[in-house]
Amino acid sequence: MLRGLTRAGMGDIESDEQLIELAGQYGFQAVDVDVRGLVERSSAEKVKELLERNGLVIGNFGFGVEWRTSEEKFREGLSRLAQTAAAAQAVGAKNCCTYILPSTDQKAAHFMALATRRLRTCAQILDAFGLRLGLEFVGPHHLRTKWANPFIWTVDETLDWIDAIGQKNVGLLYDSFHWYTNGLTVADIEKLDVSQIVHVHINDAPDVPMEEALDNGRVYPGEGVIDLTGFLRGLQNIGYKGAISQEILAQKKPTDAPEILAQHSKACFDKVFGTVGL
Amino acid sequence: MLRGLTRAGMGDIESDEQLIELAGQYGFQAVDVDVRGLVERSSAEKVKELLERNGLVIGNFGFGVEWRTSEEKFREGLSRLAQTAAAAQAVGAKNCCTYILPSTDQKAAHFMALATRRLRTCAQILDAFGLRLGLEFVGPHHLRTKWANPFIWTVDETLDWIDAIGQKNVGLLYDSFHWYTNGLTVADIEKLDVSQIVHVHINDAPDVPMEEALDNGRVYPGEGVIDLTGFLRGLQNIGYKGAISQEILAQKKPTDAPEILAQHSKACFDKVFGTVGL
Amino acid sequence: MLRGLTRAGMGDIESDEQLIELAGQYGFQAVDVDVRGLVERSSAEKVKELLERNGLVIGNFGFGVEWRTSEEKFREGLSRLAQTAAAAQAVGAKNCCTYILPSTDQKAAHFMALATRRLRTCAQILDAFGLRLGLEFVGPHHLRTKWANPFIWTVDETLDWIDAIGQKNVGLLYDSFHWYTNGLTVADIEKLDVSQIVHVHINDAPDVPMEEALDNGRVYPGEGVIDLTGFLRGLQNIGYKGAISQEILAQKKPTDAPEILAQHSKACFDKVFGTVGL
Amino acid sequence: MLRGLTRAGMGDIESDEQLIELAGQYGFQAVDVDVRGLVERSSAEKVKELLERNGLVIGNFGFGVEWRTSEEKFREGLSRLAQTAAAAQAVGAKNCCTYILPSTDQKAAHFMALATRRLRTCAQILDAFGLRLGLEFVGPHHLRTKWANPFIWTVDETLDWIDAIGQKNVGLLYDSFHWYTNGLTVADIEKLDVSQIVHVHINDAPDVPMEEALDNGRVYPGEGVIDLTGFLRGLQNIGYKGAISQEILAQKKPTDAPEILAQHSKACFDKVFGTVGL
Repeated sequence: MLRGLTRAGMGDIESDEQLIELAGQYGFQAVDVDVRGLVERSSAEKVKELLERNGLVIGNFGFGVEWRTSEEKFREGLSRLAQTAAAAQAVGAKNCCTYILPSTDQKAAHFMALATRRLRTCAQILDAFGLRLGLEFVGPHHLRTKWANPFIWTVDETLDWIDAIGQKNVGLLYDSFHWYTNGLTVADIEKLDVSQIVHVHINDAPDVPMEEALDNGRVYPGEGVIDLTGFLRGLQNIGYKGAISQEILAQKKPTDAPEILAQHSKACFDKVFGTVGL
Repeated sequence: MLRGLTRAGMGDIESDEQLIELAGQYGFQAVDVDVRGLVERSSAEKVKELLERNGLVIGNFGFGVEWRTSEEKFREGLSRLAQTAAAAQAVGAKNCCTYILPSTDQKAAHFMALATRRLRTCAQILDAFGLRLGLEFVGPHHLRTKWANPFIWTVDETLDWIDAIGQKNVGLLYDSFHWYTNGLTVADIEKLDVSQIVHVHINDAPDVPMEEALDNGRVYPGEGVIDLTGFLRGLQNIGYKGAISQEILAQKKPTDAPEILAQHSKACFDKVFGTVGL
Repeated sequence: MLRGLTRAGMGDIESDEQLIELAGQYGFQAVDVDVRGLVERSSAEKVKELLERNGLVIGNFGFGVEWRTSEEKFREGLSRLAQTAAAAQAVGAKNCCTYILPSTDQKAAHFMALATRRLRTCAQILDAFGLRLGLEFVGPHHLRTKWANPFIWTVDETLDWIDAIGQKNVGLLYDSFHWYTNGLTVADIEKLDVSQIVHVHINDAPDVPMEEALDNGRVYPGEGVIDLTGFLRGLQNIGYKGAISQEILAQKKPTDAPEILAQHSKACFDKVFGTVGL
Repeated sequence: MLRGLTRAGMGDIESDEQLIELAGQYGFQAVDVDVRGLVERSSAEKVKELLERNGLVIGNFGFGVEWRTSEEKFREGLSRLAQTAAAAQAVGAKNCCTYILPSTDQKAAHFMALATRRLRTCAQILDAFGLRLGLEFVGPHHLRTKWANPFIWTVDETLDWIDAIGQKNVGLLYDSFHWYTNGLTVADIEKLDVSQIVHVHINDAPDVPMEEALDNGRVYPGEGVIDLTGFLRGLQNIGYKGAISQEILAQKKPTDAPEILAQHSKACFDKVFGTVGL
């Protein structure tokens, strides 16, 4: 399993290029970045060199399609997707992801029908470039009632949705925060087949009742109450070998310098990865 | 367009065989019957002879898969579907249908995901036998809140769902009662392509506010307030040539003899079909 | 049915803009042009104005994906397809097409598997923009053995392939030349459902044995031996209302001025459309 | 990886029940049997007991659909498939398989189109019951020209076909004989993801030139020239944990008693599984 960084939790990072350098410097093995932007600012060749020089692979390359609102917005995103996919393929990236809000102001059933068709089309395009799409179920309880109608938030619902989408390159983005706020156990991870997991996020929850954990109130791995040892052990047991990317969503960006935050993140990974012998 | 009968509105019909004889006797051209049952009680050859002798084709041959409840029930239905389809094909039937309840006690989005997959599998089996599946949107307002969560009930939602199912042999069952209770117009019919319509039901609504029309409070065509001339004209204008089957759902079965009811139905069809020159 | 023009048979046409002006001038109702190019050279708004001013709709908007060779070429085309589709939608175009060579130097079965997946992905993208894809079966006998392995060339094979592709927005491009060189009859057209036809080409064959008719040896409608009256009558009988675009493939471009050729084409259409009362 | 038996190579086995008893007696862990027949002759409950008492799981439960010939034959098989699947699910079986003949008397491309649609429908039905379908590529050179037109026989072609079928529950049946006759290496196995393999067959080839190895001229594992250690090592390295079923196709059934043959098979497995520490 690869130690991964995203910009969430890294403070005032100015660019994905800076994130890559920092990730390399502090021993990370994967980054979640906007690959298309990187490639457009230089070239696929140079992005590959940058990644290699820093000992990194891409965790999540940036999906970039808005499938949740109007058909017009969806089509705009779709117009760019094949080019994003071409950029991703050119630098050896494999996976992108999108999150599922657990409630919606649209009629839930109708929105599910629209979203099923839209994500199937996206998955087919990604598949043409050998890429996978991970759907992130989102657990925090406050989001389940934030919009008028409940949508879906459990692993089982998400797997059923993946079956409805019906493309083999669609799987889960499994985030420790959503595992925790769904009240799931290590056994729930272990009953999955590793091929169902496209990407993993790691972060921790503060010591508040689980039902009150806020989506943007996350803390660094090992600094909260989530059983991250169990989480990682479960993934290890089913043979997961991909990126585990830190994603610390918070109401305020941390003010420390990115170097300090990267060093801190490294220490957090050392601790929680150490508990499972990594 | 073919004059069609179902058992709904025909009182104490004892068998599909009896319905077929009556339909033939009173000049109908199509019947909606349980084709599998008919074939199992005699043979495909004899059912074809019976239909031909009575000048009838099959409108809706009886889908018979319960896709709305548990996976177990669904699988039971699926186990029989290919045989039903083989029976239908053997007698020259083309279309079957299923209705969509406008609310559900299940979580609406999750149910939509499950139902999308289930109906896709059914449609694929039907397609192997050259058959089509019509989805009936259900308009009455009281059913929209009968169960805990709203599902879908409009034509547009149903067409979006058909896109999500993604099989070309899925279309609409268009019922005049649901057209009326959805507040639709002739123009709404005319913007469809005829290939989107698998089957049609005809019946009328009593003179109560449209929002109060009850699903099982229907009256015979021409005896209520629905603009059936407009309904038929719209279908005619887009080139619909299939069955238009009477379906009089009511709280109590009519007590007249089936012969009287068939004669009455014929008179109703004479009247409303007459207004569009048929 | 709409009288349509393509550049094939129009001599030294310099641009699609010129084709549009000529088509308008000579009473045509549809043109097959590279819509994406048109939009990129001006704007969707201006292209729509240009079409309206000339009384034209788009017949075939230019698919532009090379699905017959390498995966790399396919992906290049795919990268542009959503943008082409967005341009087409913006000007109200509905249909694009691609032809199927009847033999191939690739292993036929493997190529069929690759092409099925590729065209399915394309069809899904087009469907997101409400567009259809027509597959053109190609009948001339000399092409069936031009490359090492026979592929497919009949209507029935093409319809079976469309079923394998499995997207409802895929249908036939029906060309009178391929109808003729396949030895088909009016009854073969009449057994189709109009929804299976995406686009139509019209042109004629010289008075040589049918087996010797060359793909690039076509003549103007009415100047050859094909029963174009039957062809048009068949399409009329099933309710086809779309474009019928002239496509005169020839070894040498005609040397007359485009105005002369447009006038000649008009006379040819007058003659053959006249035989079916259009 | 589980030691598995099929009836091929077991001489005059009278029934699947006998095969199960023998397999249990000689320490096998999986059997390939006609699960539907077993269940129909007793009950799912009793079949499960029989398997448990003998320490066995089902390797391949018997697909039973003829997708290679006429549409009628296909539909007949399809009519039974959901019931076969229900029986398989009831006894905890997971996988069934079908082989791909490397040549065909049908037009290869057209047959590929038909077969793609047919197997997709089958895969959808199987998926409804949580089951997988393995496609067996068939390598022997003499079969590539046995019928008029080459079809497909390589792993890569088969994987491309699986993509065309487009259902996530379709994968490979990987047979050591076809691995060998395709000239494949351990690296070819190791570049697969384990989720692509549904089932495995093991058997050996006599010491003749590889191009002359006959499909029905196989010998017991370890008694021929195939590098079965490499074959098993490759599967082990990618994490395969399913059944590896012996299948000794031969022109004449061995005449020894089934007990003798089971004992011999056990000795063969001891030898080759021993070389990889199993």
